[in-house]
Amino acid sequence: MSSGQKTWRVGVAGLGTVGGGLLQFLAERPDFAPAGGRAVVTAVSARSRSRERPVDISALTWFDDPVALASSPDIDIFVELVGGSDGPAKAAVEAALKAGKPVVTANKALIAVHGAALAVLAEEQGAPLLFEAAVMGGTPAVKMLREAMVGDDVKSVAGILNGTCNYILSEMEATGREFADVLAEAQRLGYAEADPTTDVGGFDAAHKVSILAALAFGCAPNFAAAEIEGIDQVTRSDIAMARDLGYRIKLVASADRSADGVLVRVHPSLAPLSHPLAQTGGALNALFIEGQRIGRIFVQGPGAGSGPTAAAVAADIADVMTGAVRPVFQAPATTLVPFTPVDPSRNSGRAFLSFLVKDEPGVIAAVSETLAEAGVSIESFLQKPTETPSEGVPIVMTTHAVAESVLNAALEQIAALPAVLGRPRLLRIARI
Amino acid sequence: MSSGQKTWRVGVAGLGTVGGGLLQFLAERPDFAPAGGRAVVTAVSARSRSRERPVDISALTWFDDPVALASSPDIDIFVELVGGSDGPAKAAVEAALKAGKPVVTANKALIAVHGAALAVLAEEQGAPLLFEAAVMGGTPAVKMLREAMVGDDVKSVAGILNGTCNYILSEMEATGREFADVLAEAQRLGYAEADPTTDVGGFDAAHKVSILAALAFGCAPNFAAAEIEGIDQVTRSDIAMARDLGYRIKLVASADRSADGVLVRVHPSLAPLSHPLAQTGGALNALFIEGQRIGRIFVQGPGAGSGPTAAAVAADIADVMTGAVRPVFQAPATTLVPFTPVDPSRNSGRAFLSFLVKDEPGVIAAVSETLAEAGVSIESFLQKPTETPSEGVPIVMTTHAVAESVLNAALEQIAALPAVLGRPRLLRIARI
Repeated sequence: MSSGQKTWRVGVAGLGTVGGGLLQFLAERPDFAPAGGRAVVTAVSARSRSRERPVDISALTWFDDPVALASSPDIDIFVELVGGSDGPAKAAVEAALKAGKPVVTANKALIAVHGAALAVLAEEQGAPLLFEAAVMGGTPAVKMLREAMVGDDVKSVAGILNGTCNYILSEMEATGREFADVLAEAQRLGYAEADPTTDVGGFDAAHKVSILAALAFGCAPNFAAAEIEGIDQVTRSDIAMARDLGYRIKLVASADRSADGVLVRVHPSLAPLSHPLAQTGGALNALFIEGQRIGRIFVQGPGAGSGPTAAAVAADIADVMTGAVRPVFQAPATTLVPFTPVDPSRNSGRAFLSFLVKDEPGVIAAVSETLAEAGVSIESFLQKPTETPSEGVPIVMTTHAVAESVLNAALEQIAALPAVLGRPRLLRIARI
Repeated sequence: MSSGQKTWRVGVAGLGTVGGGLLQFLAERPDFAPAGGRAVVTAVSARSRSRERPVDISALTWFDDPVALASSPDIDIFVELVGGSDGPAKAAVEAALKAGKPVVTANKALIAVHGAALAVLAEEQGAPLLFEAAVMGGTPAVKMLREAMVGDDVKSVAGILNGTCNYILSEMEATGREFADVLAEAQRLGYAEADPTTDVGGFDAAHKVSILAALAFGCAPNFAAAEIEGIDQVTRSDIAMARDLGYRIKLVASADRSADGVLVRVHPSLAPLSHPLAQTGGALNALFIEGQRIGRIFVQGPGAGSGPTAAAVAADIADVMTGAVRPVFQAPATTLVPFTPVDPSRNSGRAFLSFLVKDEPGVIAAVSETLAEAGVSIESFLQKPTETPSEGVPIVMTTHAVAESVLNAALEQIAALPAVLGRPRLLRIARI
């Protein structure tokens, strides 16, 4: 191997879960040389120098400022594990690329928001910009789309990309508790952040699927165009009644390409109980990739955690060491344009509707007449006895495929019916 | 991109399903330049020059001899789609590597049998040797193990790697027909070869899992050490009775690493009906990869066919164009040793046993006493009425985990019982 003798000096900014996992892996595997050369962490930067860590960092060069580390002449590869779409993470990645240094990052927000501009910079400088750890942790979704699918035309990707939401939904189903209750427990256990908005609001999954869409379709990430709905409105009643109809609720992130453009969306969706997505429980992630020639590939694995995510960072470091030169996304960065978003209201699909109605005669007739007049065809319907009918009676139904604009108009009318309490809830049934 | 202007001249030997698919893909995508440079097929070799093909080859340089094509100065990449572990395929790949040319092949037999020696040659010459299409068609199992898992220590791989066997087993279950009948139909439909031994005998799956084991564990492929059993002895009665016990029979190929060495085996195995392997039907392939740090990754996709396999070849061509330099397997080829095989009789696991016994009193007692005396503990037992008791009564059972040597000794004794007709059948229950 031509690079057999080389030692690559790695600078790591951010020593949280992933950074600590990476240092631990390289300490356990001092012979890590998957492409001939050896990778050795020589310099680090983090918020606190003195914090207790699984690996001794006293022999490493310390930088208070990640930007100074990124542009240091004493490192050959910069690993960014600071996080955040802007601020020091972005400044440090830009500094490394401007200095011609390969960058490995786990930062989905940075790539989803600034990926196109960073790709231009990286390719101008001839420096790789790799981000396997940004999506699905140790499961190589990025590599699959970036490298393995180049001999195909990808039509769609869809999956479960946020482990925190998946854990919360699984727990809500398993224990019959409400969202707020399970979220609070997940926060106590460290499975959810103190400010959970990024995860439960669907933004993290949207960052990830925006990156996958760019890789799949050869365009610039377009996070701003993603249609995003989180899981914070999902109730235990939704979950129980979906289950009674043979479905499980999952936060599904998807990107579909059509002649009109690309529709990127994240929303709670129903999958049949036997479906691989429904069977992806706990903190697992899963992804379907559908290609014109290859057909459908399904991959499932751990989406987060120190070990898996650090392994993805290590694999990217190995890729840097191979000397491979290829575009950051599928096409040269200077040619990338953001994909054209498709108006979601033009989308058509099956839906799961949930209503809280007054316990009085004629209500169901009024709701179903409104739907029928709008042209929405009901596929299944469920009303179960409630212990507190005075607080309203929940009813749920599934529809045949219908345009969202039609459905939304019908739901507006239903919301205005005097017997309907609160807003009707709409969840989509996953198409994959 | 530094390689932005380069055109790579590709020579393709073998224009069957995969070769035809590759030519068709490149004809449909004349702008195929996933790593900056363009790939253009300029020369071909096949058995018949005049055969009807989906793509016109009259403008390409024709070679009667694939070895001459492989060493031609007018090509930059050699694609070997001839097949077979020896003969012209091996000679041509050697010739290309000796001339320093990158090689892309779909030939599992060649890599499983001669992979170690070819890797030495490739690395001496600094020429990539890539074989994504050799395993799981368009599903990137090779890339996952070769590149994505380098930041981990893989403990085991296990899966369904032969689509023909999976199709036959699925059809046997769906239609209740016997093996020979379904095989004959598969041959008529072109899903099975005229000589089906490579597929139904388990050898194709063994080639593939030998390659995956080498990539997973960083050792030389050791096809000779694989323990191989095909599906030709699986009966419709086995399938029906396994199903009655909650299992489906699949041809599972696995490689497990332990302190003693590596156990590579292919055999019909039972997976619970709800298990992802049991739900991998028809011609699909599926693979579990279990890593020390990453945990368990599952990938499922089409394992064969013109489109998927040609897409895998195209992805390898793209990888060549990136200029990446890394070992063919996980470690430099000169350091590779064949893995130490583990004696399968020392292996322990749950088993499914099937007997044909005389329809007379005391038979079941005799069988179960023999098992009990040997220390084999029965987990479930099934005997169903038969329409032809004079031909023998089938009984099946599952056992708790037991060493294979113990089980085999017990089965010898049972086979010798006068009331037992024919040889008892042993199928393993998949451990994943």
